[in-house]
Amino acid sequence: MTLESGEPLHGEEAIIQEYLAPLAAGYAGALGLKDDCAILSPTPGHDVVLKTDPVAGGIHFLPDDDPANIGWKALAVNVSDLAAKGATPRAYLMALSFPEAPTRAWMARFASGLAEAQTAFGIQLAGGDTDRRPGPVTISITVLGEVPTGRMVRRATAKPGDILYVTGWLGDAALGLRLIKDPGLASRWGISTRAADAAVARFLRPQPRLAIREPLLAHARAAMDLSDGLVKDLGRMAAASGCGALVSLGGVPLSDVGAAAVAADDALWSAIAASGDDYEVLIAVPPEGTAAFESSATTACAAARPSFGITRIGEMTAAGGVALFKPDGRPYLPPRAGWDHF
Amino acid sequence: MTLESGEPLHGEEAIIQEYLAPLAAGYAGALGLKDDCAILSPTPGHDVVLKTDPVAGGIHFLPDDDPANIGWKALAVNVSDLAAKGATPRAYLMALSFPEAPTRAWMARFASGLAEAQTAFGIQLAGGDTDRRPGPVTISITVLGEVPTGRMVRRATAKPGDILYVTGWLGDAALGLRLIKDPGLASRWGISTRAADAAVARFLRPQPRLAIREPLLAHARAAMDLSDGLVKDLGRMAAASGCGALVSLGGVPLSDVGAAAVAADDALWSAIAASGDDYEVLIAVPPEGTAAFESSATTACAAARPSFGITRIGEMTAAGGVALFKPDGRPYLPPRAGWDHF
Repeated sequence: MTLESGEPLHGEEAIIQEYLAPLAAGYAGALGLKDDCAILSPTPGHDVVLKTDPVAGGIHFLPDDDPANIGWKALAVNVSDLAAKGATPRAYLMALSFPEAPTRAWMARFASGLAEAQTAFGIQLAGGDTDRRPGPVTISITVLGEVPTGRMVRRATAKPGDILYVTGWLGDAALGLRLIKDPGLASRWGISTRAADAAVARFLRPQPRLAIREPLLAHARAAMDLSDGLVKDLGRMAAASGCGALVSLGGVPLSDVGAAAVAADDALWSAIAASGDDYEVLIAVPPEGTAAFESSATTACAAARPSFGITRIGEMTAAGGVALFKPDGRPYLPPRAGWDHF
Repeated sequence: MTLESGEPLHGEEAIIQEYLAPLAAGYAGALGLKDDCAILSPTPGHDVVLKTDPVAGGIHFLPDDDPANIGWKALAVNVSDLAAKGATPRAYLMALSFPEAPTRAWMARFASGLAEAQTAFGIQLAGGDTDRRPGPVTISITVLGEVPTGRMVRRATAKPGDILYVTGWLGDAALGLRLIKDPGLASRWGISTRAADAAVARFLRPQPRLAIREPLLAHARAAMDLSDGLVKDLGRMAAASGCGALVSLGGVPLSDVGAAAVAADDALWSAIAASGDDYEVLIAVPPEGTAAFESSATTACAAARPSFGITRIGEMTAAGGVALFKPDGRPYLPPRAGWDHF
């Protein structure tokens, strides 16, 4: 479905009141999207955790993607950051920009994907803005979450010796994108259509790992979500913490698709280690806390829908730099360090 | 100065750490822009007031504007909403999008304008995002302010009989834009270069009317900022409040430029009544509160730098619709109702 097909919508007010106001109906502080500002009434004893991460057509999603998936992903990539910080989602603002008026059909599908995501993540629309300008469709979301005062799980606080974990499975999003562009890969990798579809879904509908929040708050020393790939994001955590890190790729959790892809083509380790869009959580836990963390995280993540696991992949080191080793023990050198816009 | 001139910047991290981190240096919750999320620690007994209003080259500013003015305006248009709600600015998030890497010179000027605005408005950078995509340079700011719990001044709460005021002077921004596009207008309107420059500055560097906050909280029944023009924004307040409104344009405050422009060309009442970008505040005050409001607002606004006044322009009515009358008593019918992106 493209933006051009069907009856165009006219007027910002029509877009807001017909398609966006229903997304804010359950949030009193949105004032029905009829005021200039929205209100968040903070929970006493909590900090507000803030993140903005816009997504644009042709860069973060494909222009002819189902608009329901675009809406889901635009919200999911922001809520993923809240999950990795131990924060509970509360509300979001959304600025939409279109090169031309969207059709009713496009807006209806887009809003339906957002509504599904809102329900799944426990968050509601508080306010926003809609305008028209050249360039790709852009969805600029700012999310607000809450953590008990002073408890946000940070990136820069890991220490040498901390044990590194990741949630879920790495690489599926990058492999899913390859499968969208070249469906023939599925047979070359020897995977079923169903497995291929699951990887594609990981790219189109990332799942913020909200179930990890309580174990993080209780046991983690540092955490961040993996939006730009393990090599780059772990490099950031290590640099910010003044540490290095050591990771065995043989220990990195792979889905059936990931395992089949690297078996078929060794170069696809780059999809596992150095590609973005997985939105799993990277976690550093002090050695004395690992047993308690593993126990609580395993229980919490198994109860999530969809469920997922946690996997130990390495540790933080005193020496600087990030060193990765392939399953055969040789050093892994990524072809590029991860996504950079410039 | 265009984006293309000079040495381009490479890497998101360079842009963030060289030019944006200094803007966040005074705000502990920004964590040096080295975490995935920022933190706002709410003041107990206060609500958080939220607004997002992106600006884009070619629409909200001219692509070859001084980047310092672009930075100022991008923040000012958002802070203006906080002022009109009675909220005290606290922090902002900023997502920058460039079609190509900006030069160091562009980023330095842009950051200098933001730094000036931060100081003037009492707000600091808390976090953000930088990416590259086609289309115009876009600056998507989300501001956070605070008001005592339950006290945000709303748009939809005006009542028939409330007296309407505006801050400052209407029309200067629209007339300033005309003067930028056609400098010969100054002599046709019979205004000095200095007066013309002042109107241009109103377009390039709008001044959020933060000094009006305390009088608003104490005395106003409803308020909003005038970003899309008096006709459209008053229409929104009236419709949201289930009222009408009656305004005498003869009572609307004009600068020397505004007075000269409508004297020279009667059609320029559209710049006064139906054009955007003034960022003055429209205020509805119950009749019994006008004396106290006028007294406190006059004192507060005279002490502001730059100083401004408040002017009574009309009243809310029980009958629906917004009726405007020209100084000669005839009804004023705007050529268009104000800015709409679609």
